Amino acid sequence: MRHDLNLTIDRPTFVTHLECSLTGERYEADRLHGLSAAGKPLLVRYDLDGVKAALTKDALAARPMDLWRWRELLPVRHTKNIVSLGEQATPLIPLPRTAARIGGSGTLLAKDEGRLPTASFKARGLVMAVSMAKELGVTQVAMPTNGNAGAALAAYAAVAGMEAIIFCPADTPEVNVREIAAQGARVYRVNGLIDDCGAIVGEGAKQRGWFDFSTLKEPYRIEGKKTMGLELAEQLGWELPDAIFYPTGGGTGLIGMWKAFDELEKIGFIGSKRPKMFAVQAEGCAPMVRAFEAGEEFAPRWENAHTIASGIRVPRAVGDFLILRAVRESGGAALAVSDEAIAAAVRDVARDDGLLMCPEGGATLAAYQRALDEGLIARDARVVLFNCASGLKYPLEDQSRTLDRHAPIDFAAL
Amino acid sequence: MRHDLNLTIDRPTFVTHLECSLTGERYEADRLHGLSAAGKPLLVRYDLDGVKAALTKDALAARPMDLWRWRELLPVRHTKNIVSLGEQATPLIPLPRTAARIGGSGTLLAKDEGRLPTASFKARGLVMAVSMAKELGVTQVAMPTNGNAGAALAAYAAVAGMEAIIFCPADTPEVNVREIAAQGARVYRVNGLIDDCGAIVGEGAKQRGWFDFSTLKEPYRIEGKKTMGLELAEQLGWELPDAIFYPTGGGTGLIGMWKAFDELEKIGFIGSKRPKMFAVQAEGCAPMVRAFEAGEEFAPRWENAHTIASGIRVPRAVGDFLILRAVRESGGAALAVSDEAIAAAVRDVARDDGLLMCPEGGATLAAYQRALDEGLIARDARVVLFNCASGLKYPLEDQSRTLDRHAPIDFAAL
Repeated sequence: MRHDLNLTIDRPTFVTHLECSLTGERYEADRLHGLSAAGKPLLVRYDLDGVKAALTKDALAARPMDLWRWRELLPVRHTKNIVSLGEQATPLIPLPRTAARIGGSGTLLAKDEGRLPTASFKARGLVMAVSMAKELGVTQVAMPTNGNAGAALAAYAAVAGMEAIIFCPADTPEVNVREIAAQGARVYRVNGLIDDCGAIVGEGAKQRGWFDFSTLKEPYRIEGKKTMGLELAEQLGWELPDAIFYPTGGGTGLIGMWKAFDELEKIGFIGSKRPKMFAVQAEGCAPMVRAFEAGEEFAPRWENAHTIASGIRVPRAVGDFLILRAVRESGGAALAVSDEAIAAAVRDVARDDGLLMCPEGGATLAAYQRALDEGLIARDARVVLFNCASGLKYPLEDQSRTLDRHAPIDFAAL
Repeated sequence: MRHDLNLTIDRPTFVTHLECSLTGERYEADRLHGLSAAGKPLLVRYDLDGVKAALTKDALAARPMDLWRWRELLPVRHTKNIVSLGEQATPLIPLPRTAARIGGSGTLLAKDEGRLPTASFKARGLVMAVSMAKELGVTQVAMPTNGNAGAALAAYAAVAGMEAIIFCPADTPEVNVREIAAQGARVYRVNGLIDDCGAIVGEGAKQRGWFDFSTLKEPYRIEGKKTMGLELAEQLGWELPDAIFYPTGGGTGLIGMWKAFDELEKIGFIGSKRPKMFAVQAEGCAPMVRAFEAGEEFAPRWENAHTIASGIRVPRAVGDFLILRAVRESGGAALAVSDEAIAAAVRDVARDDGLLMCPEGGATLAAYQRALDEGLIARDARVVLFNCASGLKYPLEDQSRTLDRHAPIDFAAL
């Protein structure tokens, strides 16, 4: 079918209002919003009965397989505001040798989010947030980032013709810092962590009127991220997997998927079965794990955060209670894994099944292994790991050898 | 629809035989082949009347949007031999600001092949070649590469459980050399160019029985690459663009697309209209351009080849006459562009339209600009550029600034 069908036909949207995720307080749609009065994320609500009447699985199947096929469950009202760079559905890659090696006997799939624009799952959230910002007249945005979100924002801001100012920790992966600037944004390296960068953005928003694109501080990134859940359900024939392992920094994707499953049930596309949701963190930065184990509703800042998986080096998350709620309701857990286990997972799965994961993706595999070892899930469970970015964005070891073509070559020894 | 439909249903294939691309000499299918007796590439031939009777556009539209939906026009007979890593259709990205800036008034689209497994178009050819090698019992393969082909081979060989030995020029982009090894292949840096590496592979094939995976030296990479043409036709509603700009090293993709268009016409999916095919090379390595301009059928080796676009640093191509034939039949041209123009194109399109191209992709934009300036195509022509790999695989400039969060920040100056 024509590639641009989802982007050339205006279709109705079904947004009714927004509401505070903590108090339920109601906010009007089609206005610019940050956090709620209670300082918590806003969630977008839809007329799901209307969606149920308007959308069938067959109608969906006849649309191009990109994020915009979910139009009835998305907030953008006018197609002309969509700043697309081709957000195609990401593939589910089977990892049979990896599963066998660590003792899983069910299907093990990696959802390879590195195949999105700017090579990470951040594209899903940012294409939605930038499209909505464009729809609502924003011209200048700012964001703290560990790298991938900033890259996605820069690219979509370029498409939108919007000014983007981005702050990242000084030790953010080099390729991220460079791609942000290449895509036309101004990027600053800050001596601190992502929440320190967030404080600068907050101050700039006050002083200069920047629109604050921090995770969950505007309501639409979560709507983009929830398409991971919508897409996964359809790809698996409308039967959700038994468990999802999700690398959790700000947690937008986990919260978004949980919301997506609820919406899919309400429009009659799936039943009440849910996957166990596993929020995966690094041992050096595990605020959700600590709060989960302590039975707390909120997660205080994790001091001295450190891990090689920079995408999940998030000491404090404004959506903490939403993450913890989803994990608990699902019967899942928050799990921390070591940097050594992360590195080993990345190495092993590339060698065994040909998929080069990012460190955060590797963390999900390490957590799956822990969950198996500790009996948190059945060995034959059907499991989906989220590889949230391309492994090419991260340093790889040099394992090459050199060969002099002018010298005699011992082919038996190669 | 379920994500794995194309990979779980065995469907008939229609291969009848192979033939020498120069002499037309016939070779049996289902046997291991290298070059023909005349030392030229073999082409796979199908019972296209049979395909025409078996395949409709509607049937096609009901299949998942990956490379394997073209099954009737592909050589793999048994689904179990397919070594997939999720070869999804790549998006067509509009470049409206770029078009306006350089004076094009028609639609300008980039086909973003960086979204395939291992982040380059090489995945298309290698998934087919490795699947066929598996089907035909090969267990050990070797290849010369400028980087991306080796990365794709390594990944698919890992899936197939096949041994892969890979040789690349010493100055191959660092990330390529490292990803090849990470995906389980043995990789050697050689003091020479890709054809020097090819000579080593040829010798190893003789001495050790390695199966030679050099460009066009086995018949199936071209069948994978031709899916670029099949996919493009479908994405544009079965109407081909006016011009295609293709970065040309070994030229498999250009030859493959030309073959695809012919097959599509024979099964009644498109008419006789063809795009002008532009083979794009770098000024420092332009054997096809030289032969095209001299009216030659074959292209001698280009000495002292050099360009920042390493993927098209191919001094000599075994499919030279096929490339030149397609370019001439189409009314297109072979064009060379400077490294400066390539770098400028990459920089401009990222800033203007948010797409980070690889240098070879940048070369196609620079060539499009030349074709406009020289009146080789109409200003309102509908044009497709092939961005053959993710721009993230190549060095980017550091344009970041640093910011001390402990010092007072002048927000107006940021």
